[in-house]
Amino acid sequence: MIGVIMGSISDWDTMKHTCDVLEQLQLPYEKEIMSAHRTPDDMFTYAKSARERGIKVIIAGAGGAAHLPGMVASQTNLPVIGVPVESKTLQGLDSLLSIVQMPAGVPTATVAIGKAGAKNAAILAGQIVGTFDEKVARQLDDYRNKIKADVAEMRDALAKK
Amino acid sequence: MIGVIMGSISDWDTMKHTCDVLEQLQLPYEKEIMSAHRTPDDMFTYAKSARERGIKVIIAGAGGAAHLPGMVASQTNLPVIGVPVESKTLQGLDSLLSIVQMPAGVPTATVAIGKAGAKNAAILAGQIVGTFDEKVARQLDDYRNKIKADVAEMRDALAKK
Amino acid sequence: MIGVIMGSISDWDTMKHTCDVLEQLQLPYEKEIMSAHRTPDDMFTYAKSARERGIKVIIAGAGGAAHLPGMVASQTNLPVIGVPVESKTLQGLDSLLSIVQMPAGVPTATVAIGKAGAKNAAILAGQIVGTFDEKVARQLDDYRNKIKADVAEMRDALAKK
Amino acid sequence: MIGVIMGSISDWDTMKHTCDVLEQLQLPYEKEIMSAHRTPDDMFTYAKSARERGIKVIIAGAGGAAHLPGMVASQTNLPVIGVPVESKTLQGLDSLLSIVQMPAGVPTATVAIGKAGAKNAAILAGQIVGTFDEKVARQLDDYRNKIKADVAEMRDALAKK
Amino acid sequence: MIGVIMGSISDWDTMKHTCDVLEQLQLPYEKEIMSAHRTPDDMFTYAKSARERGIKVIIAGAGGAAHLPGMVASQTNLPVIGVPVESKTLQGLDSLLSIVQMPAGVPTATVAIGKAGAKNAAILAGQIVGTFDEKVARQLDDYRNKIKADVAEMRDALAKK
Amino acid sequence: MIGVIMGSISDWDTMKHTCDVLEQLQLPYEKEIMSAHRTPDDMFTYAKSARERGIKVIIAGAGGAAHLPGMVASQTNLPVIGVPVESKTLQGLDSLLSIVQMPAGVPTATVAIGKAGAKNAAILAGQIVGTFDEKVARQLDDYRNKIKADVAEMRDALAKK
Amino acid sequence: MIGVIMGSISDWDTMKHTCDVLEQLQLPYEKEIMSAHRTPDDMFTYAKSARERGIKVIIAGAGGAAHLPGMVASQTNLPVIGVPVESKTLQGLDSLLSIVQMPAGVPTATVAIGKAGAKNAAILAGQIVGTFDEKVARQLDDYRNKIKADVAEMRDALAKK
Amino acid sequence: MIGVIMGSISDWDTMKHTCDVLEQLQLPYEKEIMSAHRTPDDMFTYAKSARERGIKVIIAGAGGAAHLPGMVASQTNLPVIGVPVESKTLQGLDSLLSIVQMPAGVPTATVAIGKAGAKNAAILAGQIVGTFDEKVARQLDDYRNKIKADVAEMRDALAKK
Repeated sequence: MIGVIMGSISDWDTMKHTCDVLEQLQLPYEKEIMSAHRTPDDMFTYAKSARERGIKVIIAGAGGAAHLPGMVASQTNLPVIGVPVESKTLQGLDSLLSIVQMPAGVPTATVAIGKAGAKNAAILAGQIVGTFDEKVARQLDDYRNKIKADVAEMRDALAKK
Repeated sequence: MIGVIMGSISDWDTMKHTCDVLEQLQLPYEKEIMSAHRTPDDMFTYAKSARERGIKVIIAGAGGAAHLPGMVASQTNLPVIGVPVESKTLQGLDSLLSIVQMPAGVPTATVAIGKAGAKNAAILAGQIVGTFDEKVARQLDDYRNKIKADVAEMRDALAKK
Repeated sequence: MIGVIMGSISDWDTMKHTCDVLEQLQLPYEKEIMSAHRTPDDMFTYAKSARERGIKVIIAGAGGAAHLPGMVASQTNLPVIGVPVESKTLQGLDSLLSIVQMPAGVPTATVAIGKAGAKNAAILAGQIVGTFDEKVARQLDDYRNKIKADVAEMRDALAKK
Repeated sequence: MIGVIMGSISDWDTMKHTCDVLEQLQLPYEKEIMSAHRTPDDMFTYAKSARERGIKVIIAGAGGAAHLPGMVASQTNLPVIGVPVESKTLQGLDSLLSIVQMPAGVPTATVAIGKAGAKNAAILAGQIVGTFDEKVARQLDDYRNKIKADVAEMRDALAKK
Repeated sequence: MIGVIMGSISDWDTMKHTCDVLEQLQLPYEKEIMSAHRTPDDMFTYAKSARERGIKVIIAGAGGAAHLPGMVASQTNLPVIGVPVESKTLQGLDSLLSIVQMPAGVPTATVAIGKAGAKNAAILAGQIVGTFDEKVARQLDDYRNKIKADVAEMRDALAKK
Repeated sequence: MIGVIMGSISDWDTMKHTCDVLEQLQLPYEKEIMSAHRTPDDMFTYAKSARERGIKVIIAGAGGAAHLPGMVASQTNLPVIGVPVESKTLQGLDSLLSIVQMPAGVPTATVAIGKAGAKNAAILAGQIVGTFDEKVARQLDDYRNKIKADVAEMRDALAKK
Repeated sequence: MIGVIMGSISDWDTMKHTCDVLEQLQLPYEKEIMSAHRTPDDMFTYAKSARERGIKVIIAGAGGAAHLPGMVASQTNLPVIGVPVESKTLQGLDSLLSIVQMPAGVPTATVAIGKAGAKNAAILAGQIVGTFDEKVARQLDDYRNKIKADVAEMRDALAKK
Repeated sequence: MIGVIMGSISDWDTMKHTCDVLEQLQLPYEKEIMSAHRTPDDMFTYAKSARERGIKVIIAGAGGAAHLPGMVASQTNLPVIGVPVESKTLQGLDSLLSIVQMPAGVPTATVAIGKAGAKNAAILAGQIVGTFDEKVARQLDDYRNKIKADVAEMRDALAKK
């Protein structure tokens, strides 16, 4: 099970791409709002109980002073993937730095800002599970073949330009 | 009582300037290491109990993905002043953005990166207390007169150049 | 009484969020245009007389080379909260740095760029007053409960996605 | 087995911290120079054969236009952790952006710039393995207890200041 | 023959300006999608065979963690011109740094972000060919005269303002 | 008479280069410490009285949230040249933006960060005076010939490498 | 006479604000397209002949790698005001740095990015002329009174919010 | 013949790496100081006469508001390679943007900031010449083999760590 959390409903426009790809990879997931700043106790309860509830990887999307991924990571030894949501004023540079620049001892696995990162968070979660689960590894191979096929389609489209 | 916390002993080089100025302003304070990422439960206990323990203002210094000020602010309605400690690689820009770009609902009062900010955190704490405490307000007036006097000394020094 | 000032009528789109939240917190306030560059003498008169007129906290919003918060802070020992208004060309990074990077001796309490910061300026002002005023402190607790309740609503909304 | 690769021997000053932590976590690893630009064929051979050689996670450190992590990720479905090595001129901002801003389809798990990130890459690799390997998960718990103990020591040190 | 490649069909909006100018300069070219991350083997085959297929200069457009120009350059000694495509979140700063900050030994010839750079990539390719081909050099002189004539037209337009 | 002011004695290391060049150009000047934040009233008195005291151009050096040039400009219609002093943490980017990004109505004439800008402030002051004063214009021609002669010397030095 | 030049007709949207303010200040001016890169010889002829043609101040607007102000400044000892035009991709940060970071010996007087800077360039030109021309100095006083009156109007508008 | 020019003798520390690599590639070159701002007429004479003097490629190194590469490119249709020299205050970001962000019509071929870029400028010049000159192309193959051999040495060194 993959846990997908985000700081606000406004992050859903970005994080739905994570859920879309998880479904394509047939990876079961749950999704929830967990605000580091507005519901810190819920967030800690979530993080502390995640492993025993069968969560394998946590994907956390947040923007601005994006503390959610790092604070969840402080309460679990599961891998935590951080998705920097594009912020209104600084284009997600603040989100990126707030997520990636973690001190030694508590990592977050940070992906690209916005939609591309949201998709990649799902693939990275699949790769983590796929390290030991051959079936998921094959799903990822299929997925990669699909994106290679997308390039073939693009080539046809370009040839017509 | 002012609570001065920092994420690591390495922040002391910066945060000692906060304590120096608090002493000059005759403001009682306590100081402690509170790591958002390594001791999150201690941090929350600290934040939740601060008001009832008589803390009026919390000053939190942190660097990099600096989550300490914002996470403390998520657990108390005391004013939380964030001091961005200069980081090794990005000169504190990451610290600054991680502290200041808080979402609506949970503010941090952010000051300048590094030593100047550390000093100003103490003065700002004094200003907050001084809002209702005339004696502290007068201490601040004295402090300001002193820095004006520093300018007079600088003028003498410049005149000799 | 909270003093809300801004450099130009164009800042009102941002600063109205400060006034909205002050009203929700039942904190009395006055609002005025104070341009650091176009009406510097008015600004100084405002700053110097603020304490005796019963102002407890000054909230100053400005953009670009945003000198208003810092210059007001140079003429009073009241806490001055600076709101970096998003600028046309550099997304408020210039506003943020011009407000937050104050030299030792004269702090501004800086909040996030734009609307989130404008709201948080009001909450921070409430926290400062609430340090000594229990009634305001309770208002803040209510406000925080309300934003927690917002998260509960978001969760319902997300569950339907 | 964890694969640790880096673009140049000059990256070793950073990447040795990865190897140190892997040893503390008792995670077997191999280390090698793989230059994306100078030995691209070797890099691809390495990436393509990694899974069958029993590698579970690849940690790739690189600086400047840091293409190593992303290009390795293009040739394997193993999780690839990217460590942005601090660059001479832009403090690692170029390294960070070159590693993290991957297009949809091919993620890298990016950690902080420099030494802190190098250490965290090892922990993250441990967390990935620990998702399914209870013994490694316990090693991580021990490691985290150790860094909590470090905080206790720091508190003693601060108390003496 | 000039080889024009790009990472995705979405880059065509930018890279069509390269092809337009190549046509104005009467320089024969081929165009193709070559994704560094999705079709890395194709990319290497393309790069390795380019010289023997009669390609003189390769123009590669890419955005975000833009690895295409640098990785192509790692497999050929033909000049490779990199066009940083404007990225969604960071305005092409990530594209620019990922392309230009190459390590010693493997250069890319980087031009401006976006449309201006795409046009200039074609001119630069012409200049490279024109180093030894007098006819192309004259085409470039004509092109430059044309843009001087554009200024004359602009002057007429300005005079009417 | 040129007025040279700076926010702190620590700015002298930069601003002495202004005074050196003013002396080479035989332009009379006065120099003084004027801290926007510590001595705001002195600063305003200085700015308001400058024209009648015979000052033709004001050169103001400041760092960090550098408000001195802009605030002086708000109180006089003399040209005000702003020198961004290199700041400890952000290399003068904060100083530059705080000085240059002035709102419509109150310009500062901003020069480069640090020593080069300090020298150029003096030359620019000379150019302003030289607009109407032929003797100063000739001094500037001499100065420019001198820096051309410097290039000739550099060429000899390079020829020996 | 003020000389207003710009690199392209597309800069007119910005530079028309310069001309508008020059007209309000009753300062005679000429305007022309001078492209540093497309018509370098014209640019040098313009710069070299400006003083003898009676030009007192040159205002040069340019964007991107904005070389016009600096190159004009290299060929005249008249004051050259540089207006960084907002660029498509980097919001004018490239324009600003290309204009302001001049080496010692050849200053440009740089103003804010975009429309505010364009207006301020005209005012700064007026201030330069006004250094010796009392009538222009009075025009500037009138202009400043007008912008103070604008603030009074803004205050009325705010009072109605 | 390759023309290597730089804005100041202080750029030699960077540009000597260009000359070193040109010598390794057995490419004849000349070197000279050409300051865009201090000796603009010399620069134009150099640029205009370069082709007829037998120059095939111009390599121009400059820092800060680095106008030399772009202005030389405005006067010749030879390929111009720009080397951004690391600047004192902004680490070469200003140099990079001033060189690379050229408007449509006049390209510069920009390489990395500092020493790596200086070396790569020489290789890129070799690649341009090697497009038509088989002997130079073979020199480049040898050079590339040598840097591959460097990796082999690095691997031995790493194995001993």
